[in-house]
Amino acid sequence: MRILEDLGKRLLFFDGGMGTLLQENGLGPGELPELWNLSRPEIIFDIHSRYRRAGADILKTNTFGANAIKLHGSGRSAEEIIFAAVEIAKKAADGALVAMDIGPTGKLLKPLGDLAFEDAVSVFSEAAEVGKKAGADIILIETMSDTYECKAAVLAAKQTGLPVFATMVADEQGKLLTGGDLPAAVALLEGLKVDALGLNCGFGPEQMKRLVPQLLDCCSLPVILNPNAGLPRSEGGKTIFDVNPQDFSAAMEEIARDGAWILGGCCGTTPDYIAALVKRCAKIPPKPLQKKNRTVVSSFAKAMAFGEKPVLIGERINPTGKPKLKQALRGGDMDYLLREGITQQQKGAHILDVNVGLPEIDEPSLLPRAVSEIQSVVDLPLQIDTSDPRAMEAAMRIYNGKPLINSVNGKKESMEAVFPLVKKYGGAVIALTLDENGIPETAQGRYKIAEKIVKTAAEYGIEKKDILVDTLAMTISAGQENAAVTLEALRMVREKLGVFTSLGVSNISFGLPHREHINAVFFTMALQNGLDAAIVNPNSDEMMNAYFAYCALSGKDEKCMAYITRYSEQKAAAPASVQGEITL
Amino acid sequence: MRILEDLGKRLLFFDGGMGTLLQENGLGPGELPELWNLSRPEIIFDIHSRYRRAGADILKTNTFGANAIKLHGSGRSAEEIIFAAVEIAKKAADGALVAMDIGPTGKLLKPLGDLAFEDAVSVFSEAAEVGKKAGADIILIETMSDTYECKAAVLAAKQTGLPVFATMVADEQGKLLTGGDLPAAVALLEGLKVDALGLNCGFGPEQMKRLVPQLLDCCSLPVILNPNAGLPRSEGGKTIFDVNPQDFSAAMEEIARDGAWILGGCCGTTPDYIAALVKRCAKIPPKPLQKKNRTVVSSFAKAMAFGEKPVLIGERINPTGKPKLKQALRGGDMDYLLREGITQQQKGAHILDVNVGLPEIDEPSLLPRAVSEIQSVVDLPLQIDTSDPRAMEAAMRIYNGKPLINSVNGKKESMEAVFPLVKKYGGAVIALTLDENGIPETAQGRYKIAEKIVKTAAEYGIEKKDILVDTLAMTISAGQENAAVTLEALRMVREKLGVFTSLGVSNISFGLPHREHINAVFFTMALQNGLDAAIVNPNSDEMMNAYFAYCALSGKDEKCMAYITRYSEQKAAAPASVQGEITL
Ligand SMILES: [Zn+2]
Ligand SMILES: [Zn+2]
Ligand SMILES: [Zn+2]
Repeated sequence: MRILEDLGKRLLFFDGGMGTLLQENGLGPGELPELWNLSRPEIIFDIHSRYRRAGADILKTNTFGANAIKLHGSGRSAEEIIFAAVEIAKKAADGALVAMDIGPTGKLLKPLGDLAFEDAVSVFSEAAEVGKKAGADIILIETMSDTYECKAAVLAAKQTGLPVFATMVADEQGKLLTGGDLPAAVALLEGLKVDALGLNCGFGPEQMKRLVPQLLDCCSLPVILNPNAGLPRSEGGKTIFDVNPQDFSAAMEEIARDGAWILGGCCGTTPDYIAALVKRCAKIPPKPLQKKNRTVVSSFAKAMAFGEKPVLIGERINPTGKPKLKQALRGGDMDYLLREGITQQQKGAHILDVNVGLPEIDEPSLLPRAVSEIQSVVDLPLQIDTSDPRAMEAAMRIYNGKPLINSVNGKKESMEAVFPLVKKYGGAVIALTLDENGIPETAQGRYKIAEKIVKTAAEYGIEKKDILVDTLAMTISAGQENAAVTLEALRMVREKLGVFTSLGVSNISFGLPHREHINAVFFTMALQNGLDAAIVNPNSDEMMNAYFAYCALSGKDEKCMAYITRYSEQKAAAPASVQGEITL
Repeated sequence: MRILEDLGKRLLFFDGGMGTLLQENGLGPGELPELWNLSRPEIIFDIHSRYRRAGADILKTNTFGANAIKLHGSGRSAEEIIFAAVEIAKKAADGALVAMDIGPTGKLLKPLGDLAFEDAVSVFSEAAEVGKKAGADIILIETMSDTYECKAAVLAAKQTGLPVFATMVADEQGKLLTGGDLPAAVALLEGLKVDALGLNCGFGPEQMKRLVPQLLDCCSLPVILNPNAGLPRSEGGKTIFDVNPQDFSAAMEEIARDGAWILGGCCGTTPDYIAALVKRCAKIPPKPLQKKNRTVVSSFAKAMAFGEKPVLIGERINPTGKPKLKQALRGGDMDYLLREGITQQQKGAHILDVNVGLPEIDEPSLLPRAVSEIQSVVDLPLQIDTSDPRAMEAAMRIYNGKPLINSVNGKKESMEAVFPLVKKYGGAVIALTLDENGIPETAQGRYKIAEKIVKTAAEYGIEKKDILVDTLAMTISAGQENAAVTLEALRMVREKLGVFTSLGVSNISFGLPHREHINAVFFTMALQNGLDAAIVNPNSDEMMNAYFAYCALSGKDEKCMAYITRYSEQKAAAPASVQGEITL
């Protein structure tokens, strides 16, 4: 893959659209273009060759719809079509790379539609495996409007060992069809370790150009941009695109100068466009990649970055000490979980912890189910909370986004189980400062374990930005100095190790009366020591008051606007209703 | 005063009792001993001479009851008696010092009794002035069972310019008749700048020995101990004391080794006791004085030291923003103030702020009246809060204890007005970090003013232990960084200047809704930065919850006992009544 080695040394160019050229060659409406790999291979070859001559470094195979679902009833198998397509492209390649092209299935995944996530993975796996066997150099997943389907495709594609590129289709505001934004999509795709990512289709280079800053702002990988030849309109029964090759290449030059590394075209673009593009941009040196080092998790809808405002992780979906939730879980009553999830979001949680661990429950089956159902009603990122690695993998696999994982610890067994999952599925992981020797009584001891965990993670290729250290709040009723040790360890981890921190706050008050007062003050103290995330009860007004007041006082709430908005609406003296925690 | 120069180089010895010896010489029951200065001067001379020969360095004049009140109806004036008494003692002195002896008036001061404070000062002034004129070397105020009367006597005695010694009489637990404890008495007397202080009378050296550690623990001045010859019993119509000279001197040796500098006797002791004492103890080197550097204020009942648990100063007796209190003050309705005082004590305040400043009110008359009335129902130390130096002096003068003063600031005018008062009456003073140029916007600027105030105070002989710096909370609604500046200045003052700190917490939230949340969290943050005292509303549960939780979390509440005690009694969910702030 000689040309891939050029990545970053020079700009690389994709080819342009296939559809327009096939229509010019007589492809009828409703006819599956992929069938031409078998019936009209010379035309496909000719198109590839023209793109290669125009200067394309990477040729997309004519396999956009070549999957079992779209080909159903065509009388042809995906396998024979893909084999033919890759063969044709390779014949035309003349030193260019061949990208096995994978488009969406055309079906919506559960819970929005009917297609099960694992069925989507199977469909994409078949295509990807055949593509690899046939000799493709890269797998390109493109025109994805749903990050969840994209995740299924990436998991399948990564299985081949080939480089995986993925491009999404967004609207002019950068929103996907499913409502997700670019930072959420980037978090997911970077977590899954694709090799390059970006946008294709949807609109022309002018509109795409406007999304480039948003994309580069959160993305640390090479960026691919394959816009259409502008916006389509119908003219005399034919679809005409409104940007000509010169204007196309002019806009693409700006995009290149902004920092995109891989440029090409989608609908409406032809070899003329690619020729103009290559001519204009070939000599532009690629802008060096900027590693963003953002610690981020995401749902399908949005990304949540750590290190800005402190992040609130809702603790209510965890059966420990909650008899009613235990009962609901035993009875498989998901409604109860969903209500807890919705309430916590309304109360202001940024992430929801999901823990269904009970001795009598089949966690590897229930945890992914719970995650999936909660994601169908709540668009917050989730924290997958389990000590069972099988349950953890099942939930991480099905999760739509980049999850927070709770937790790994300093034990060899824990790190060996968790880190491969984080590597494969992506995620940020909470690291507890305990190991085979228990929980150190000193801040220095806890710091040392944090250091060991970060070092071991690095051996798995997991960066420290994807670790949040929890220095373990232990109840002060058992030891006067417990709070001080936790807070000091927290400060050390942030300042010396340079890693973000999280705490399960409420453990600090175990065994004491009126625990909320202790929790709220400890929370404030931890925030002042630099706490980045906290597992708290968002239904507790004392905790939320502490949070909003702290943000206002520490300058993290600009002009106190969030505080004023929240509290101006509340009546000054309604403590009885304000208290309103759901009692289990 | 050659012998006083020996103070600290060797132990000094007082003489012993006068009464026992006068009775042996025929003083009848009910006869005023002081009249013998005129009628039997040779006997008084003989007693003094015997004490001098026994080794006494300081002779007490026979003037214990020589004041206008006790001599009323005797036909003799205090003036002629004192003149005679001092003359006799000087004649017998032979190089010893003559201490003009002042005992209590025998009347209770207002509000417990009828004697007005300033009338007591007048009575004592007359005696002290005559004593000085007659040639006494020292004024010894002794057998005081009420710190308030003692304060009147010390103010009078200090007026003469002579060295002033003061000894109190306590019970075996170290409590005065008025309920005050030794730390409270020491705080008051050190504040008034007596030259030596201690205990006399009440019981024998064994009992007194047990109080010595308590006394030395809080006292930085030379300690005087003049016990009785044990406990008295009646035997054949005569009063017999149960400790003989040998046992007396043995117990006194232990007291000397513990650190007392000036030893003698009271009731029942005779020249034999003093001879035995001097023989046994003359060669014991005085233990070096230990400067306690305690920052302390007091009421008549108890002392409050800063730097241990954070100190809560109740803010409710201040008309700012309290229309009902304004109305009460205008109408001279003291009951309203008293209720506010009692409520705040019940809610857990350690000190009460007293501010009656209103434009239409005669503060120099009302402030001392308010202070006096509040002290009659509340035994907490008070913070005298006024910007009027005349009102400040009037209140400091009448105050029973060592007050907290609010405030001085970095303006020349303020320091010139306040520091002489602190020097004269004693007190710890809140120093606001503002000066002629206003309030600095930076922490460094506020720190510089604190430094200037501490330096100027030193020129007045006021130690930095008696200053608490307030780095001025300004509302965050006017500036995002206001909290950070105040907190940083606070940290600097504590760490670099080594001075305790106080804050008027609630200013931080001015103009915001639900101010209590901001106040409580800012209070917590300030406590974490080392805040030693806070002016807060003790009726606010949020503030008190923050306080008790912080103390538990920071290890300042041993084994969380205060927290557990406070909250175990409260029902878990009674927010409506818990809120119960008195609305004005
Ligand atoms: Zn397209
Ligand atoms: Zn409570
Ligand atoms: Zn006595």
